[in-house]
Amino acid sequence: MTSDATLTPRTPSPAAVGATEILGRYRAVRAATERIAAPLAPEDCVVQTMADVSPTKWHLAHVSWFFETFVLEPHLAAYRPLDSRYAYLFNSYYVQAGERHCRDRRGYISRPTLEEIYAYRAHVDEGISELLEGASEGPLTVCAPLIEIGLHHEQQHQELMLTDIKHVFSVNPLRPAYRDGPVDPSPPARTVAWVPFEGGLYEIGHQGDGFAYDNETPRHRHYLEPFLLADRLVTNGEYLAFMEDGGYERAELWLSEGFATAQERSWSEPFYWEERDGRWWLFSLGGMRELEEHEPLCHVSYFEADAFARWAGARLPTEEEWEVAARDLPVSGNTFETGRLHPMGAAGAGPAGGQGDDQGPRQLYGDVWEWTRSQYSPYPGYSPLPGALGEYNGKFMCNQFVLRGGSCVTSASHIRPTYRNFFVPDATWQFMGFRLARDGG
Amino acid sequence: MTSDATLTPRTPSPAAVGATEILGRYRAVRAATERIAAPLAPEDCVVQTMADVSPTKWHLAHVSWFFETFVLEPHLAAYRPLDSRYAYLFNSYYVQAGERHCRDRRGYISRPTLEEIYAYRAHVDEGISELLEGASEGPLTVCAPLIEIGLHHEQQHQELMLTDIKHVFSVNPLRPAYRDGPVDPSPPARTVAWVPFEGGLYEIGHQGDGFAYDNETPRHRHYLEPFLLADRLVTNGEYLAFMEDGGYERAELWLSEGFATAQERSWSEPFYWEERDGRWWLFSLGGMRELEEHEPLCHVSYFEADAFARWAGARLPTEEEWEVAARDLPVSGNTFETGRLHPMGAAGAGPAGGQGDDQGPRQLYGDVWEWTRSQYSPYPGYSPLPGALGEYNGKFMCNQFVLRGGSCVTSASHIRPTYRNFFVPDATWQFMGFRLARDGG
Amino acid sequence: MTSDATLTPRTPSPAAVGATEILGRYRAVRAATERIAAPLAPEDCVVQTMADVSPTKWHLAHVSWFFETFVLEPHLAAYRPLDSRYAYLFNSYYVQAGERHCRDRRGYISRPTLEEIYAYRAHVDEGISELLEGASEGPLTVCAPLIEIGLHHEQQHQELMLTDIKHVFSVNPLRPAYRDGPVDPSPPARTVAWVPFEGGLYEIGHQGDGFAYDNETPRHRHYLEPFLLADRLVTNGEYLAFMEDGGYERAELWLSEGFATAQERSWSEPFYWEERDGRWWLFSLGGMRELEEHEPLCHVSYFEADAFARWAGARLPTEEEWEVAARDLPVSGNTFETGRLHPMGAAGAGPAGGQGDDQGPRQLYGDVWEWTRSQYSPYPGYSPLPGALGEYNGKFMCNQFVLRGGSCVTSASHIRPTYRNFFVPDATWQFMGFRLARDGG
Amino acid sequence: MTSDATLTPRTPSPAAVGATEILGRYRAVRAATERIAAPLAPEDCVVQTMADVSPTKWHLAHVSWFFETFVLEPHLAAYRPLDSRYAYLFNSYYVQAGERHCRDRRGYISRPTLEEIYAYRAHVDEGISELLEGASEGPLTVCAPLIEIGLHHEQQHQELMLTDIKHVFSVNPLRPAYRDGPVDPSPPARTVAWVPFEGGLYEIGHQGDGFAYDNETPRHRHYLEPFLLADRLVTNGEYLAFMEDGGYERAELWLSEGFATAQERSWSEPFYWEERDGRWWLFSLGGMRELEEHEPLCHVSYFEADAFARWAGARLPTEEEWEVAARDLPVSGNTFETGRLHPMGAAGAGPAGGQGDDQGPRQLYGDVWEWTRSQYSPYPGYSPLPGALGEYNGKFMCNQFVLRGGSCVTSASHIRPTYRNFFVPDATWQFMGFRLARDGG
Repeated sequence: MTSDATLTPRTPSPAAVGATEILGRYRAVRAATERIAAPLAPEDCVVQTMADVSPTKWHLAHVSWFFETFVLEPHLAAYRPLDSRYAYLFNSYYVQAGERHCRDRRGYISRPTLEEIYAYRAHVDEGISELLEGASEGPLTVCAPLIEIGLHHEQQHQELMLTDIKHVFSVNPLRPAYRDGPVDPSPPARTVAWVPFEGGLYEIGHQGDGFAYDNETPRHRHYLEPFLLADRLVTNGEYLAFMEDGGYERAELWLSEGFATAQERSWSEPFYWEERDGRWWLFSLGGMRELEEHEPLCHVSYFEADAFARWAGARLPTEEEWEVAARDLPVSGNTFETGRLHPMGAAGAGPAGGQGDDQGPRQLYGDVWEWTRSQYSPYPGYSPLPGALGEYNGKFMCNQFVLRGGSCVTSASHIRPTYRNFFVPDATWQFMGFRLARDGG
Repeated sequence: MTSDATLTPRTPSPAAVGATEILGRYRAVRAATERIAAPLAPEDCVVQTMADVSPTKWHLAHVSWFFETFVLEPHLAAYRPLDSRYAYLFNSYYVQAGERHCRDRRGYISRPTLEEIYAYRAHVDEGISELLEGASEGPLTVCAPLIEIGLHHEQQHQELMLTDIKHVFSVNPLRPAYRDGPVDPSPPARTVAWVPFEGGLYEIGHQGDGFAYDNETPRHRHYLEPFLLADRLVTNGEYLAFMEDGGYERAELWLSEGFATAQERSWSEPFYWEERDGRWWLFSLGGMRELEEHEPLCHVSYFEADAFARWAGARLPTEEEWEVAARDLPVSGNTFETGRLHPMGAAGAGPAGGQGDDQGPRQLYGDVWEWTRSQYSPYPGYSPLPGALGEYNGKFMCNQFVLRGGSCVTSASHIRPTYRNFFVPDATWQFMGFRLARDGG
Repeated sequence: MTSDATLTPRTPSPAAVGATEILGRYRAVRAATERIAAPLAPEDCVVQTMADVSPTKWHLAHVSWFFETFVLEPHLAAYRPLDSRYAYLFNSYYVQAGERHCRDRRGYISRPTLEEIYAYRAHVDEGISELLEGASEGPLTVCAPLIEIGLHHEQQHQELMLTDIKHVFSVNPLRPAYRDGPVDPSPPARTVAWVPFEGGLYEIGHQGDGFAYDNETPRHRHYLEPFLLADRLVTNGEYLAFMEDGGYERAELWLSEGFATAQERSWSEPFYWEERDGRWWLFSLGGMRELEEHEPLCHVSYFEADAFARWAGARLPTEEEWEVAARDLPVSGNTFETGRLHPMGAAGAGPAGGQGDDQGPRQLYGDVWEWTRSQYSPYPGYSPLPGALGEYNGKFMCNQFVLRGGSCVTSASHIRPTYRNFFVPDATWQFMGFRLARDGG
Repeated sequence: MTSDATLTPRTPSPAAVGATEILGRYRAVRAATERIAAPLAPEDCVVQTMADVSPTKWHLAHVSWFFETFVLEPHLAAYRPLDSRYAYLFNSYYVQAGERHCRDRRGYISRPTLEEIYAYRAHVDEGISELLEGASEGPLTVCAPLIEIGLHHEQQHQELMLTDIKHVFSVNPLRPAYRDGPVDPSPPARTVAWVPFEGGLYEIGHQGDGFAYDNETPRHRHYLEPFLLADRLVTNGEYLAFMEDGGYERAELWLSEGFATAQERSWSEPFYWEERDGRWWLFSLGGMRELEEHEPLCHVSYFEADAFARWAGARLPTEEEWEVAARDLPVSGNTFETGRLHPMGAAGAGPAGGQGDDQGPRQLYGDVWEWTRSQYSPYPGYSPLPGALGEYNGKFMCNQFVLRGGSCVTSASHIRPTYRNFFVPDATWQFMGFRLARDGG
């Protein structure tokens, strides 16, 4: 399975597409963002329930600030910002783009109102239209990649809007639901099958065509020992068995920092789980929902995933192992497009049909971001983008673990085999789960 | 000036007034509350910028919960709460009234929306109407004092709504204004005159007619040495002189805890003051405003007031001294009713006219709550109201200092000579200032 | 019982005593300090277990620094400090005496060693001898009061050395004892008798002969309503009844800040109490000791005292009430001199003998410092000493409560009726207890 | 440079050596520990200045507890602990070995005294003598590896004793020195030469003969791209240039968490550096010492090393790169044995002599632990030792970076090419520095 192909340089530039096509995609992504915000009341859009969570209002503005700052200001001479103070309010962490409002105080900002923020979005949209409609080929070559990265950036925030509003609603004793109606139960989970992969020298990282972030490059060689990968995600039912076996109290199963964290925060079940009268419930975007044992486990930290794996006599896969397993599979699954917005159990498998019969790994894309045991590090030869956009990824390469594969709130058009998401190991509010791996073949 | 009058027992019950009169007052107070909220956007009403600040939305609901809990539930058999979960969300600190939502998380609660809270208010209003319209004399005797206390409670929250929205707007880099238009400048401040009071045995505390909180009773004897009281409040200009004389760096001027607090929080000027290009500005309900030296100083902590007094070779008055000076003066001044919502300098004094010519103390009511050197303690013989209402005042008698006289955001009908407000000594977000006193006569 | 006597001015100066007499007292106090430290290993003298606790080594040095700074440096021309850096290390909180080492880091300082600190003490002692032996009358008049205050200061630290080493040993799982041997059990506690006191105008504060701190002055008039005072301290057994009645869980019994403190720190019994196999033990200077129900309760906070009083249908006395009850009694009881170093129950009372038969209040001096309900405030007309010594008391007049009467680790020669000790309301590591009071006569 | 050798299994067992030889080594290591403690006063041995620092007294006891717990208790039937409570006091973090005293409270424990701890050491030494002298071959085979790991453990703590006492003395304003006398200045540092290494598949990890910790195994293949390694460590002078170029203020040079840490802690120079009157000094085990520009930089965090590397247009090496460079070099350099206890500049290089002339990397062993860019992770196929000893390394594989090569306070007999030390990225109190690397060949 190793490849002789020459290592290709990182080229995040999009294919040469026309302005019309770009504008079409721009409008589609922007409209999708607003559809996600549509069910919310103005009051919902203000709240920040912890530093990691941003108000919906802020997301709506920040993604517009991104286009304003990196596309319109430098490349549309006629552009005038709607309000020059927004640059301060809506910069997230780009130090080189200027001073910014303190992250953990975003929930203190009632103005601009939601309506004013929609006006800001419209103002930026007009600027982009003007830029693209009037662009000759030269400028377009410069701007198109910037718009492309802006759209991927906005798709990330679409996911975060859903993640964050889930948190906001969860801390409200009234437990409001983001959307109405139940979702279908998951089919029964089959016994895990272990899919073998050969050892050898593999190429890892982005190939060079299509969009990728700088942290997915350069493509490089990596030696893997033979390994086995579980063909499906760990389920709620399996995790319940770990809990019932004293998983949260047995220090020997945990990383030292993990056990300390669990004790300090009194963790005794996954985030969003609640026990009521002896039965387990979990909070979902559709409100409270009784726990289904066949559903993929979601909202666990790296620490919990790692402890579970040790308990199960297995381990988490490395990010390279995951990528090797995923790279030849189509990017499809229970992503944002299904509208479920909640993990779903792997399709039941009969003698034939779908992924079920070939014993390959399932659920690699969608459902939940999968924790890997890889700490987030630069690939050999990595260099970040120049300027403020270089802050997008590189400066976070410390005390974060890599997650792969996207979740039920990730757009399918946003994900790919080489995509590296990353979070600190105690994070739980994202749609995070995992699958197991083992040494050997 | 001492009195021979017999000490009267604490009787917080209102005079026997008719149901119609009560309902009229009820409706007036409730309408005033909603007028205060009227200029705000729904987004403004959600935000909590620190634990001491509550969202407007919460104030609007909590004062209604008070009537629901202490009047309707026990006394209107037909009453059904609009939503039984509101009791948990909108109880503030009445332990005996049941579990309650955590105070410092009020800003996380986007639902019920503002509109839903107005529906809750209407529901409670209907209950009160029903109760009062159908009440025979017996029940009315029971309910009237409870409604009376509920209305005073709501007036307190009217003041807090203004105090809190000022804080919310102040932390927004856009510095929004609560209301439009400038306010008149203050007239020049005259040199302080020291008004002498004789020593002797005085009666302190509420007399017994009209409403009072339990902490104003019982009326009791208190011996005072002769003292002098400044005839006006300390001004911004005087405080600037203290600052320019190194006031914030000179530990010998401060209480030990005060200096530690000032250092830890990097205090170097009063709250809401900002220096821009060598000029001082302060944030007001009308937005940023250049500092006027003749205006009464506002938004200082007890610690700052105490340090200033020591610097000035004076001291703060005790609450008994203040009460003796104020008790024969009419309750009038720059209160909420003037619509200024900002302190104003003492009226200039000529040979005749108003308070100016008689050399008595001015500005005792309105403008700013006046810090006294009295730590908040029970009066001799004090006993709190029975039941949950006994938690209103008594349980805070520790590490708080008494303030007297009301401020520019206090309703005149809410204040009286014996009224004891109290805050921790590092509080600054209320409309707090002070006047000086001295020993001797 | 009110007095016609003219209010006397504050005069903390000692009577005109000769140099020999002063030196004798100096040497006696200094020797007593060293006897207290004698049973300790050098390792014991280094440790600081919380910010309030100072290492023995530090106490030994600080009291010497006090003499060096306030007596020798200004008044003995030939004096040369042993090490000029000690001024920085051993100043406690006298800002006007220069920069000082951070209080909560005293336990980080292994050097100077204990031996070096004894050399420092000897050096200062030589200075004082030289000063006193060579002093003519003029300088003596100046220095004698300073030495007097230094000796009272050292006596305070003698008490703190015992208080602090108790804490140090208590956190050691080995539970070492400061001294060997058991102490006698307490006699059975009689039912509380309530001693009545008339209302009226009393004089409070130091009279003017003998030593007093500035905070005990000036003597002034204070009006008291009639009151009743318990004739003995609250006992362990009585407090157990409070605990068994759910005292720590019933918010309605507590000050708001008290209940929050108790919850936050998981208080469910007095400090130094431990339950082992269903029996209560407490840590004493003689090591672990099974709880005796007749012994005075010790090591409770103001919050606990206040909650107990409310539960018992009583209240704590004010400091003025305490002083009125104590001022005519001899300063004797279970003080440091008895060598018990632990509270002892009130002497059993028969028809005759001692304090027992006259139904007057007992145990006012010694055993435990008694919490009063009085927040620590300046007396009317109070002014602190000039210079750095003015920081001794005055700057702490905020968020502290007054305690009266000394404890079993206070020297009898250090205490008097007007003595005002003060601590924050959550303090428990001092020998603190209380007695009850009631309104009426 | 790649190897064809078969991957060898992890075998941490020592060669079959006789009991006499083991006992000789045991006594040598134990005596070395006590020699390190010899210059200290009992007071010095008590202090804990931060959670990471342990008192000397604790180190002396803990290493004895290790032998008691893992060797004597299970393998010497006649063994009786000196004090059964020591197991609680002197366990560090081995959860499976029972409850333990809280790490950050080690400085609160004055007893057992230093003398008592030496008695404990002697008691354990007697046990080991008895065990080894009477051991037949079977038990020896079991115990010898345990004693071996205990001795390596004790050597680690020898290093920590020096590291920790340096911290203890540094926070004392008197700045005591651990040892007398100056150390020689460093020779001038040559311009860095970049040593090229070929890319390819390398074997990494412990080979199998001699002692190694579990985390150095198993030996496995790892693919490296070509790289360049600096031939010497970064110096104080080079780091000063970074500081003068605004290094601490330029966010773009730092990891996000690194910059936040530096800001929060007000870092503006390396730990132990102090500016006095425009000149730089640093604290050493010989006391304050003026900074030498040619000396290797020491006591910097990973964050600072990483920022410096970015500023210098380079990067830190990976741990595998370091190991490839070091594995064929002899383990010698400025280690503990030189007695310098302070880093020393690389030997000047002429046309011949020492390491200097062959342009190979110098200073790989000794001087300072070298930060690598590798986050501490399990090697492929890693499994920890069984039982409590498995907690030695494995449970820390999160948010730590690997350091290689030992320092000037590491024994030469304790270090080897595959040794993986690890610390959190904000640690600075160890003897930590770094060298640079670059991509390419």
